[in-house]
Amino acid sequence: MSKVRVAAFSVSIDGFGAGPGQDLEHPLGVRGPEMFAWLFQTDVFRKMHGQEEGSRGIDNDFAHKSFENVGAFILGRNMFGPVRGPWPDDSWKGWWGDEPPYHTPVFVLTHHARAPLEMQGGTTFHFVGDGLESALRQAKDAARGKDVRIGGGVATIRQYLMGRHIDELHLAMSPVLMGEGEHLFAGLNLPRLGYATSRTVAGENATHLMLTKK
Amino acid sequence: MSKVRVAAFSVSIDGFGAGPGQDLEHPLGVRGPEMFAWLFQTDVFRKMHGQEEGSRGIDNDFAHKSFENVGAFILGRNMFGPVRGPWPDDSWKGWWGDEPPYHTPVFVLTHHARAPLEMQGGTTFHFVGDGLESALRQAKDAARGKDVRIGGGVATIRQYLMGRHIDELHLAMSPVLMGEGEHLFAGLNLPRLGYATSRTVAGENATHLMLTKK
Repeated sequence: MSKVRVAAFSVSIDGFGAGPGQDLEHPLGVRGPEMFAWLFQTDVFRKMHGQEEGSRGIDNDFAHKSFENVGAFILGRNMFGPVRGPWPDDSWKGWWGDEPPYHTPVFVLTHHARAPLEMQGGTTFHFVGDGLESALRQAKDAARGKDVRIGGGVATIRQYLMGRHIDELHLAMSPVLMGEGEHLFAGLNLPRLGYATSRTVAGENATHLMLTKK
Repeated sequence: MSKVRVAAFSVSIDGFGAGPGQDLEHPLGVRGPEMFAWLFQTDVFRKMHGQEEGSRGIDNDFAHKSFENVGAFILGRNMFGPVRGPWPDDSWKGWWGDEPPYHTPVFVLTHHARAPLEMQGGTTFHFVGDGLESALRQAKDAARGKDVRIGGGVATIRQYLMGRHIDELHLAMSPVLMGEGEHLFAGLNLPRLGYATSRTVAGENATHLMLTKK
């Protein structure tokens, strides 16, 4: 059965999913990349970004699974880019260059309408202005029976969790203390929302936590 | 050199160090014991509590280290017991029976004076009414060059962290979501307080995180 899932989402020991001060130079926030160190060195990630081969092992297996059977992505506006408010023009096309690593339809949550943006390699960005649930419906249709992956960021995942829309979360807890930034768990009572830990796997550079909805 | 340290302190994936609703039936709060499952089955813990032998391995090694070279403990009032406000009498002697598992002087933070309480097996509870720093000074004196272990609970550890008094924390992250209770990290910027992760070790039933002060 197709799932709505979060995968390979990095969090710090103290529960942050992004650093503070996201801007053009800091797409993941200040010190955000430290949480993704486990991913950046995997073979899956490196080849996806045209680099030499990387590590193979448990972390790499989780990176691989995160893209498996994904038919559509949903991203928050901030994950798509640093532009706030109305789009001044069509020049911002995401952080990822001409060929983004999605290769599926991608639904971007925004309050500001914009025409779809077709990129190389099968990624098309669709801008959804009428809310989370509409984006999810559209993504499910576009996924044609495959999974919908909520790519992030933190605020987007939290909203879908609060609506109990997510079936499964794979979090990669990195051995890093952030201290500030966007907190994934604060104020969320995940057990009350129906979530429990189903599996913990120690990877080479992160601890992989699987949370599933009852 | 002697250290001030926290050891074998259990936290949930979502950062709680105790469940909600601590009372006589729930010394660790509701669902709190789930966070300590890793510890309860170790050989060190079981023998300490007069039970048959338990598991040996990484978790057990960490349990063992948590008691090594400890010359004195500091506990918060709530960790000592469920009594709030002035002591009605001397009948409450801790959660642990006649022979508590400390075997050292134990300094209990309280606003309400009480005579020292000598227990079997070398544990004496001293009640400290003039603040955290006084308790720490007394504990260091009593430890005679050995380490002072801050036993908990959450509020006590947080206060000593805010004062940068703790040299080293060993947290055991259990694969459990609590959702509510006492949060260890909320509102604390540990990197700004000088703390960083120095080591992560996957145990059989918990992930052991070592945080040290720069």
